[in-house]
Amino acid sequence: MRQMEHAIEIPDNVQAMNGCFVDGRHYFAVRIYFEDTDFSGIVYHANYLRYMERARSDMLRLLGMDQNKAFDSGEGVYAVANLAIKYHLPAKLDDDLIVVSTVEKMRAASVIIDQTIMRRGSDQNPEIITSANIQVAFLNPQGRPHGHPKAWTETLNKVMTAAQDAENQED
Amino acid sequence: MRQMEHAIEIPDNVQAMNGCFVDGRHYFAVRIYFEDTDFSGIVYHANYLRYMERARSDMLRLLGMDQNKAFDSGEGVYAVANLAIKYHLPAKLDDDLIVVSTVEKMRAASVIIDQTIMRRGSDQNPEIITSANIQVAFLNPQGRPHGHPKAWTETLNKVMTAAQDAENQED
Amino acid sequence: MRQMEHAIEIPDNVQAMNGCFVDGRHYFAVRIYFEDTDFSGIVYHANYLRYMERARSDMLRLLGMDQNKAFDSGEGVYAVANLAIKYHLPAKLDDDLIVVSTVEKMRAASVIIDQTIMRRGSDQNPEIITSANIQVAFLNPQGRPHGHPKAWTETLNKVMTAAQDAENQED
Amino acid sequence: MRQMEHAIEIPDNVQAMNGCFVDGRHYFAVRIYFEDTDFSGIVYHANYLRYMERARSDMLRLLGMDQNKAFDSGEGVYAVANLAIKYHLPAKLDDDLIVVSTVEKMRAASVIIDQTIMRRGSDQNPEIITSANIQVAFLNPQGRPHGHPKAWTETLNKVMTAAQDAENQED
Repeated sequence: MRQMEHAIEIPDNVQAMNGCFVDGRHYFAVRIYFEDTDFSGIVYHANYLRYMERARSDMLRLLGMDQNKAFDSGEGVYAVANLAIKYHLPAKLDDDLIVVSTVEKMRAASVIIDQTIMRRGSDQNPEIITSANIQVAFLNPQGRPHGHPKAWTETLNKVMTAAQDAENQED
Repeated sequence: MRQMEHAIEIPDNVQAMNGCFVDGRHYFAVRIYFEDTDFSGIVYHANYLRYMERARSDMLRLLGMDQNKAFDSGEGVYAVANLAIKYHLPAKLDDDLIVVSTVEKMRAASVIIDQTIMRRGSDQNPEIITSANIQVAFLNPQGRPHGHPKAWTETLNKVMTAAQDAENQED
Repeated sequence: MRQMEHAIEIPDNVQAMNGCFVDGRHYFAVRIYFEDTDFSGIVYHANYLRYMERARSDMLRLLGMDQNKAFDSGEGVYAVANLAIKYHLPAKLDDDLIVVSTVEKMRAASVIIDQTIMRRGSDQNPEIITSANIQVAFLNPQGRPHGHPKAWTETLNKVMTAAQDAENQED
Repeated sequence: MRQMEHAIEIPDNVQAMNGCFVDGRHYFAVRIYFEDTDFSGIVYHANYLRYMERARSDMLRLLGMDQNKAFDSGEGVYAVANLAIKYHLPAKLDDDLIVVSTVEKMRAASVIIDQTIMRRGSDQNPEIITSANIQVAFLNPQGRPHGHPKAWTETLNKVMTAAQDAENQED
């Protein structure tokens, strides 16, 4: 392998994309690559769960909740407790999908999140690809359900309330 | 890379393992490798869907249903339409899991399958790791729901009946 | 699953990120998620190949080379013919990595690409995570090596020349 | 989700398959599933590295080397340091592949392994799908190269010698 003789500088504008919040809802983009598809030409069904997890992780990062630190410090880690997912339309190579995540309900040791994966249709109207309802539990290092870190509960409650307020105003 | 100078012969007993049917239920083993785990030390949640799909594909292969051929001939392909999964216990590196699959209900263009992933516990009693209820639809090449190939309907019906008969006898 | 009663609009600024070219080199960002790591706490070694493929696909897309269309029209598809990769430093959850891709050599039916994955270090100096040299062949639908589409050869040649010119100017 | 009313017993003969050693070479079978393929109809190139890792892990398990325990006890863990892989023929859905692994060279803190993935051809003669040369380093918990556990060095040396003896006898 040829040695790289010239140090490579990384342009400032090249960095992993974050999603954003609008009215308490979190929006996160995902591009579909070769690795995401299977021989039938469409995205392999289990992979949508990976995109939803990326979106949830991005949501927590934007909210200042550091999962890495919580795990390393022995506080605990989020894990999916159960989920239901419905597949509406297939996604394909090169698709530019959007994962929309809404905090639906807070419980003592878990949170329920609605996640919908969409695609801008040819008329720019969003098409629904998959939609899921996911319960994520906070587990201590022994794998037992455990109350969320207190600051996290407050943060997630704020986001949930913002989404509900926005939804009520639309009515 | 060194050239392989001596032809390698493949021993006859080395071949991909198939599962088996007992009383209309299909049993399929899965070993957990590095690739299956995540940094929290347990199996990444989306991967269980991959094991369930391996088990369903193995079940169809054992029943003589050739998915590859059906796709290539333009007949169609199975795709997951929706599923619900519950995570009971975490699985870990080196675990030897068993996916138990039961055909629950046949519809015109889909089939509903119960799938439970288990592990032999330290006392040899099976522990439930995850359990799921999965609806798989048969789609034509345009991606529309389409009746199963006729021979496949009959085959799946037989398996479903065998499982129900066995269950009734246990009562 | 609760029905989404209010149509969700997708904010314009939420879209899958593209990389960019600087002096004939392509830069592409990748964030590390749960799915990317394994139980030893670091990124699973095979996953770096996925990031490199994402970067190559992004590079082709930016250059106007539509792989999806070439495949569907029966022209052909790129496939990795061989590669060598060296693992320098481990990447971890939440890392924001950069894949730097340089077209190294054009052949009749293949292209050789240097790909280096980097991370901004604590002092903002880039650290090398992995580096690879990858030969990608253009295959016809029968899986045989086949000349690149002519317009693609010209495009890749331009990018390669731009990188070499920039490198020579640095000397 | 319907409750499973009848306890499921796991048949004794259903367990994850192990590979085997013949003349110091390790043979391990891999079946190709939907998850392994991509939209071009063949196995996604990075996945072969997963099969090779499964084979290496199986080889260590058969030799009584417990990676899980070594990691948990803070001794260390194997990680790929570099590899070269050549793609000869594409594998497809339902293929029954064999990974053949040969310990090529022992170093103080690493081991070099030749791995070839084969398929029984239509005439039962093995076809080579991919072949790789992989250097795996033993790392301490700080991620630094570290001598193999002593018993492991002896075990791997024995296997390497057995393969070389068998090869010499063939001449």
